Amino acid sequence: MALALQWAARGMYTTTPNPRVGCVIVRDGQVIGEGFTQPPGQAHAEIQAMADAVRRGHDVRGATAYVTLEPCSHFGRTPPCADALIRAGIGRVVAALRDPNPLVAGQGLARLQAAGIQVTSGVLEDEAREMNIGFLSRMQRGRPWVRLKTAASLDGGTSLHNGRSQWITSSQARDDGHAWRARACAILTGIGTVQLDDPQLNVRAVETPRQPLRVVVDSGLQIDPAARVLAGGGTLVVAARPDPQKESLLRERGAEVIVLPNAHGKVDLAALMEELGRRQVNELHVEAGFKLNGSLIRENCVDELLVYLAPSLLGDAQGMFALPALDDLGQRRRLSFHQVEQIGPDLRILARFI
Amino acid sequence: MALALQWAARGMYTTTPNPRVGCVIVRDGQVIGEGFTQPPGQAHAEIQAMADAVRRGHDVRGATAYVTLEPCSHFGRTPPCADALIRAGIGRVVAALRDPNPLVAGQGLARLQAAGIQVTSGVLEDEAREMNIGFLSRMQRGRPWVRLKTAASLDGGTSLHNGRSQWITSSQARDDGHAWRARACAILTGIGTVQLDDPQLNVRAVETPRQPLRVVVDSGLQIDPAARVLAGGGTLVVAARPDPQKESLLRERGAEVIVLPNAHGKVDLAALMEELGRRQVNELHVEAGFKLNGSLIRENCVDELLVYLAPSLLGDAQGMFALPALDDLGQRRRLSFHQVEQIGPDLRILARFI
Repeated sequence: MALALQWAARGMYTTTPNPRVGCVIVRDGQVIGEGFTQPPGQAHAEIQAMADAVRRGHDVRGATAYVTLEPCSHFGRTPPCADALIRAGIGRVVAALRDPNPLVAGQGLARLQAAGIQVTSGVLEDEAREMNIGFLSRMQRGRPWVRLKTAASLDGGTSLHNGRSQWITSSQARDDGHAWRARACAILTGIGTVQLDDPQLNVRAVETPRQPLRVVVDSGLQIDPAARVLAGGGTLVVAARPDPQKESLLRERGAEVIVLPNAHGKVDLAALMEELGRRQVNELHVEAGFKLNGSLIRENCVDELLVYLAPSLLGDAQGMFALPALDDLGQRRRLSFHQVEQIGPDLRILARFI
Repeated sequence: MALALQWAARGMYTTTPNPRVGCVIVRDGQVIGEGFTQPPGQAHAEIQAMADAVRRGHDVRGATAYVTLEPCSHFGRTPPCADALIRAGIGRVVAALRDPNPLVAGQGLARLQAAGIQVTSGVLEDEAREMNIGFLSRMQRGRPWVRLKTAASLDGGTSLHNGRSQWITSSQARDDGHAWRARACAILTGIGTVQLDDPQLNVRAVETPRQPLRVVVDSGLQIDPAARVLAGGGTLVVAARPDPQKESLLRERGAEVIVLPNAHGKVDLAALMEELGRRQVNELHVEAGFKLNGSLIRENCVDELLVYLAPSLLGDAQGMFALPALDDLGQRRRLSFHQVEQIGPDLRILARFI
């Protein structure tokens, strides 16, 4: 299963909106076939692994398939993998995790069992869950797994009061940040960052065949149609009130504009998360400024923080998140540290809200 | 040598102002004697290890002594260890590090060599240097190694604007902080912290036979004679201007008052570091507030930061260090991350100024 998870990881940038799945076929203690889920519409991991076994001259009948997610039982863009495993005469299936997709939800395993295949599940389940944390979030909650990235000095400064913020962290940390962008289905920012930094908001530092959807929260539709985030089209601009003239200008630039107001004349961030879930966004990567970061956290839209801490002190500077002063320490927002790694001279801290 | 370093570590809370030294005596690949430096005035590591060998029925003649610091060659509170090694007929001495004490400075090794003992140095030198970072600082720079401890939320908040700060980090982190207090020769705080928190500033959470000197920076001698930091006497209060009446009140409480003004009517912090060096303070542990922390950093008195980061967000709150806003990121104070560990739910980050 550990090997199957390694295969699953090869689909990190490509399988979305499908889950990243790996499959290893074993007979008599020997690996005879390996594979991982291909881009949408192409073969899933199980089919790839069986084809690999055949290509390597092996018979898969009676063999054991280790798969990092329950085989699908429904017709999507491809026929059900459970049926293919049955047809091929696989003897045993070990799944890391049950598929929370309501279209599968145990039916894949049940169908295998009904066909006389021995079935086990729950092997390396935690690792398998991490691999598809976004897909699981979308299936179970109808919204993406939201990862908010920020870069700060050790004393929590993200930019100088004069607006300067490039670069606090190292080039290694920035490249690492692009790997996190690449695995996301969408990257979200706010109009403040667009106006200040004019980011492209795409993946450059790592190889990827797919660029995430770009999303700009822009309540007043203030975005300059020449902004780099609109280049190449496909960007989703989210406003709080309609502005037909500006909208048509943006559509000419290939952007899509949606209007999702809340009661305060701002973008309804929770509604936006649901909209992105409907658009099959598994992992949403947020790279925004102080204000939008704070709004997303206040409105409980963020699942984890990806914080790059630089070995420096900025002193009196802009902080990470616009959050109000507390009256009592009991009101503080609680996290748990999930992972800490050194990236070049910087620290990368992954912390989850609890 | 790794074993000798483990023995050295047993003197972590007790050898000061002497260095923490361990010694292991080996003959024919077998450890025959082990020891570490005892409290001041008692036996050094080499003497302890040789006595241990004799106690265990071994002859140390011709054996190899692994010692984490160059054996001393001068009469201090105890006679020179180099002479004792020679008299005992030790065949070879391997030292991790040369002693930077100007009274030793290579003379210990030279004396051993002159007596026909084979001498090697520089084995696990970095580890040995870390063990005595304070002693080395005092010998080489005439001032202590200054470690500033702070505890903050992930977004850099140390206390609420209403002054509340207890407790941001976990009990495990607080206990760990006491271990760092215990290894220091002195603990320094400011009048602001004394007035706000009334700390005892002693070591409680770990066993120690010795309490560090307590030092309070109090330019205006505002300290309340009933402050807990004065309890038991021996506290050093550092003022910026004389106040005979207040000084005599404090002396009645067993405190010592010194006056070290700078040109701005505040305590001259650099002069204080030199004064503490003269008082044989090897490691100085700072637990102060926002303002004194900032002053110490601005005046280049701090060597490393010991930061406990709690898995929480405080939002708009007091930061770690009162440092002015920068005009340019090039002016930021640079550090390097030396060590990161999880302590209970918190992170402990040791970062050094570079």
